Amino acid sequence: MSQSRPILYTYFRSSCSARVRIALSYKNIEYESRAVNLQKGEHTSDDYTELNPGKLLPYLVIDGNGLSQSIAILEYLEEVYPDKPLLPKDPGQRAQVRTIVNAISCDIQPLQNMRVLLALPEEQRAGYARKIISAGLAVVERMLEKTAGDFCVGNHVTMADCCLIPQLYNARRFDVDLSAMPHIRAIEERANALEAFRCAHWSRQPDCPVDLLSSANM
Amino acid sequence: MSQSRPILYTYFRSSCSARVRIALSYKNIEYESRAVNLQKGEHTSDDYTELNPGKLLPYLVIDGNGLSQSIAILEYLEEVYPDKPLLPKDPGQRAQVRTIVNAISCDIQPLQNMRVLLALPEEQRAGYARKIISAGLAVVERMLEKTAGDFCVGNHVTMADCCLIPQLYNARRFDVDLSAMPHIRAIEERANALEAFRCAHWSRQPDCPVDLLSSANM
Repeated sequence: MSQSRPILYTYFRSSCSARVRIALSYKNIEYESRAVNLQKGEHTSDDYTELNPGKLLPYLVIDGNGLSQSIAILEYLEEVYPDKPLLPKDPGQRAQVRTIVNAISCDIQPLQNMRVLLALPEEQRAGYARKIISAGLAVVERMLEKTAGDFCVGNHVTMADCCLIPQLYNARRFDVDLSAMPHIRAIEERANALEAFRCAHWSRQPDCPVDLLSSANM
Repeated sequence: MSQSRPILYTYFRSSCSARVRIALSYKNIEYESRAVNLQKGEHTSDDYTELNPGKLLPYLVIDGNGLSQSIAILEYLEEVYPDKPLLPKDPGQRAQVRTIVNAISCDIQPLQNMRVLLALPEEQRAGYARKIISAGLAVVERMLEKTAGDFCVGNHVTMADCCLIPQLYNARRFDVDLSAMPHIRAIEERANALEAFRCAHWSRQPDCPVDLLSSANM
């Protein structure tokens, strides 16, 4: 549909950006990547705020629309670029996908983010993030017992996988113990074998500092 | 579609439950309400956890499906009960609706919830909630400058309104100053004039304690 290539504003470490990077790659939508360094506060610059008042990542310019909020972007891509679908056809299964999506995007990711962690004393931050991610993924694991095949819901990649895998980057970063989560680990392995997930990984982004590459475990 | 009446597990104070109460009422879907008292910890009971491992509200039993996560439920209702639509037809506008939905459901509600507040010293909790809601609604107000008509996106009620109005219950509760948010206040007034929003309000729920009714400002 688009006349010019979509532009994705992204940061290598942003798990919300990674959701969209995965979906774009999975759907074979070529895009141009523009790095916004969250650590340097580039998301609060006047230029970026003018573009995206939410001052968050990702931000996608596509088909003449400027879209923020990763889940809204996934739904847009699904509606406008239906090839290689990221939602099943059955409404009950679609709800299962979105339930996992929201269990991650509402109940895990926001709570382990800097906005919350910075409100806590420094010595409590990592432990709090670990607790939130661990409890949240335990809930997802219980959901997967009912829904998973090769991937989160059935045997095809869905939006749920686009959200789960980037959340696992953060789980690894905060040393969350995934040993009691066999479904999550099996899905992670299958996803990381796919090029769409590999090329969206934080370690494969042009803005990833070289000194972090040694900690990339994929 | 359903053979028997849907059952909604809800708590009068839960803004996520209110999103679904509004959508069900707006779409004229009759349902049976079952109160789960979050303050008494009823959501952590064995019976409820068996039903919903996420231990959160709302939970909707409909068409033989048990659905958790309010936004997944809104999307399901829209797909299966398309009358009185809560999404526009145009993909760009649908993305605008979902962007506002996620700006509230990912970036405001989870951060002002008890799970975060209880991690903070008691004297900081109300101030932190006020700051989060205030900053989050300021972002929504800037989005509304571009998207609003009578309601959040255009002139019809959408999922965005189903999320905004319950977030305003919490804004009022934490004394957030809405004076610089004219779009939000105008939409609140129009929504509260509609029966679907009125009957979903926390003060109109059977489990609302009588002594709280005097603080219901609608």
